[in-house]
Amino acid sequence: IDSKSDSALRMKMEDFHYADIAEIINELNFEHATYIIKLLDSEKTSEVLTELDENIREQILSNLSAKEIADEISELDTDDAVDIIAELPEDRVNEIIAQIDDKEHARDIVELLRYDEDTAGGLMAKELVKVNENWNVLTCVKEMRRQAENVTRVHSIYVVDNDEKLKGRLSLKDLLTTSTKAQISSVYIPKVDYVTVHDRAEDVARLMSKYDLEAIPVIDELGRLVGRITIDDIVDVIKEEAEKDYQLAAGITQDVEADDDVWVHTKARLPWLLIGMFGGLGAASIIGSFQGAMANPILLSFVPLIQATAGNMGVQSSAIVVQGLANDTIRGELFKRLGKEFILGLINGCAIALVVLIISHFLFQTSYLVSATIGVALIAVIIIAALVGTFVPIFLDKKGIDPAVATGPFITTSNDVFGILIYFTIAKLILGF
Amino acid sequence: IDSKSDSALRMKMEDFHYADIAEIINELNFEHATYIIKLLDSEKTSEVLTELDENIREQILSNLSAKEIADEISELDTDDAVDIIAELPEDRVNEIIAQIDDKEHARDIVELLRYDEDTAGGLMAKELVKVNENWNVLTCVKEMRRQAENVTRVHSIYVVDNDEKLKGRLSLKDLLTTSTKAQISSVYIPKVDYVTVHDRAEDVARLMSKYDLEAIPVIDELGRLVGRITIDDIVDVIKEEAEKDYQLAAGITQDVEADDDVWVHTKARLPWLLIGMFGGLGAASIIGSFQGAMANPILLSFVPLIQATAGNMGVQSSAIVVQGLANDTIRGELFKRLGKEFILGLINGCAIALVVLIISHFLFQTSYLVSATIGVALIAVIIIAALVGTFVPIFLDKKGIDPAVATGPFITTSNDVFGILIYFTIAKLILGF
Repeated sequence: IDSKSDSALRMKMEDFHYADIAEIINELNFEHATYIIKLLDSEKTSEVLTELDENIREQILSNLSAKEIADEISELDTDDAVDIIAELPEDRVNEIIAQIDDKEHARDIVELLRYDEDTAGGLMAKELVKVNENWNVLTCVKEMRRQAENVTRVHSIYVVDNDEKLKGRLSLKDLLTTSTKAQISSVYIPKVDYVTVHDRAEDVARLMSKYDLEAIPVIDELGRLVGRITIDDIVDVIKEEAEKDYQLAAGITQDVEADDDVWVHTKARLPWLLIGMFGGLGAASIIGSFQGAMANPILLSFVPLIQATAGNMGVQSSAIVVQGLANDTIRGELFKRLGKEFILGLINGCAIALVVLIISHFLFQTSYLVSATIGVALIAVIIIAALVGTFVPIFLDKKGIDPAVATGPFITTSNDVFGILIYFTIAKLILGF
Repeated sequence: IDSKSDSALRMKMEDFHYADIAEIINELNFEHATYIIKLLDSEKTSEVLTELDENIREQILSNLSAKEIADEISELDTDDAVDIIAELPEDRVNEIIAQIDDKEHARDIVELLRYDEDTAGGLMAKELVKVNENWNVLTCVKEMRRQAENVTRVHSIYVVDNDEKLKGRLSLKDLLTTSTKAQISSVYIPKVDYVTVHDRAEDVARLMSKYDLEAIPVIDELGRLVGRITIDDIVDVIKEEAEKDYQLAAGITQDVEADDDVWVHTKARLPWLLIGMFGGLGAASIIGSFQGAMANPILLSFVPLIQATAGNMGVQSSAIVVQGLANDTIRGELFKRLGKEFILGLINGCAIALVVLIISHFLFQTSYLVSATIGVALIAVIIIAALVGTFVPIFLDKKGIDPAVATGPFITTSNDVFGILIYFTIAKLILGF
């Protein structure tokens, strides 16, 4: 790059896929990135822009004029165009849209900008192939050829009536094997899955992956066909959703990447560390309030064991519930589920208590009373961790809060505090201090 | 169902999508499930079978004769057929395959059974549309119509030479707009992404989602086109991958579902609970070995705080690295990354230590020396947790082990033990016991 042999570089770039170029640009410094972007031919530039990291894209866009951006996004499907300009300030967006030559494209983009990006409306593209139920197959094929010019991938051909209402679909296969004179209304398949513009992106993803759909039409409140969502956008939704849940389980609030700078990481991580810290301080004050415990260092040395076990059990239970809720496989009554967790906690608790008692008897020569305390406390703490881990995410889900926040540091911290309280209460009862 | 009004039930089932029927059957007891399966028409039965939970499917299959199963899987695409029978014992599989009437279908299934299910070969289907480069467009369209009969969804038309070697692809759009006399070799697109049979499923998923592909051809070691993978199978791979990572992070070893029975849960959860337990016992023996610490209950009451903070920091660091490795965004030198984590740990550690010192000064009236111990220990423990959390997954990845096992209980436990050791060592140095 530094040698700036333009033509050699341009040649090389022509052979690369835009996703690879984007990956290279993400790694470069800003100056080199702009240089390469300017070198690419326009069609490729626009594709590359869709694949860039947000902050790098922002920098590059701020260096382009409204006219240049308008030219780039004119080459893109409406959904990708919207993804790029949705991040820009409103007046800049208006300026860019005014510069788009194709007025229909501009109108479509303006329409899509209205929708929340986490809804079906925010995911859909305006590009699709639709035919009127009153046409015959020949007209339909002609129209399709014309429309297909603007559509990157034809999946289904949607059939609408005169009011643009979605009636059904045609498959390419059917079209290939039907007489050219047949009326569309006599050959189309009236059963078609669809979503409405305000459906949540998550629900669209669930529907499409359950029914193995590769594209789904989107209708508005009046039943009119307004766009379609393709599976590649859904793959992104599924991946983002999974990443978000994973990060929440690990106690990271925002979407951070390994290569973001230290301040972004601190902002995403410190809040959860503080939650853990307050839990730790709470545990310290609980321990401090049990005067008898303070006089029994053996008892205190088993605190990490109680804490680790309760934490692990709670995280396991909540992770299973969170995943079950995400997959829609959690059904049946809450009480039955809690009953099952109780039994599970009892079995695992007894198993672990037994191992601990044997080891601690030989290794630490704990007295019988202390052993009893540790054993009973372990079983109680495990059962309660399992119940809390199960109950909290289901409760949050019912209240409309993302249950994924309940895993990780949140459940660990509450189980730390609970666990220690239970441990010392049991110790007080058994040892009688 | 209990009233057994066959025709009414059959009518109802006809309107349902097979994925919905499968969902209903998963909820029913075995007797009812078999009853419904027998009621469905054969085409639907086979589709429903692909969507059932594994254990329920196994039960149902064990009640069907080899001939009945052969009839069902004859209706399925080769990849789905293989998914169903791959779980059965080998002699049963041979029996079923012998009963398949369509010998070509049977041969394809036998071929696919050879591949590991986590490779491209295990994901691919034999159904695809391919044309010879020496044909003209007209022959090609005729052939396509014939081949398309067996292919549920046509994505791309693959072009092969006389040796069946993959040469490129044709898009449906191009075919619609090209003269019928043109030779295929003059219109096909020679650039086509492909994978080979032994590529890992994960890598195929990454490639397809990076390049937004909806289908990808699979070639064998000799470059011959042997199958294709469609995006709906990749969606399943991505979801499974994400679920597996999530469960590993939560300390669950196998793929368990919320509705599995108590023993399945215990088997999946107890091993990790035991790891946590041994960590806890390790911590107890460390504490016991510091005689001076045992004499200082204030010091002991801060153990949960140290432990929670180290655990949370370690999980955060490892989660970010694991995700970065999964997305292929971790590049650059290990030392630079560790350096960054060091700074991150220092900043977060100082912030948390400051808050803790202020609170503990007022709340617990800790002496200056104890405060100093806690503060220094917190910073040290956080930095080390961050470094361990970063190093371990990268190290495992380099050794070819799934780095996801390094999150969750594994990192928490090792940080517990490390953290407590560091805490008491610092206490010994500062307080001089």
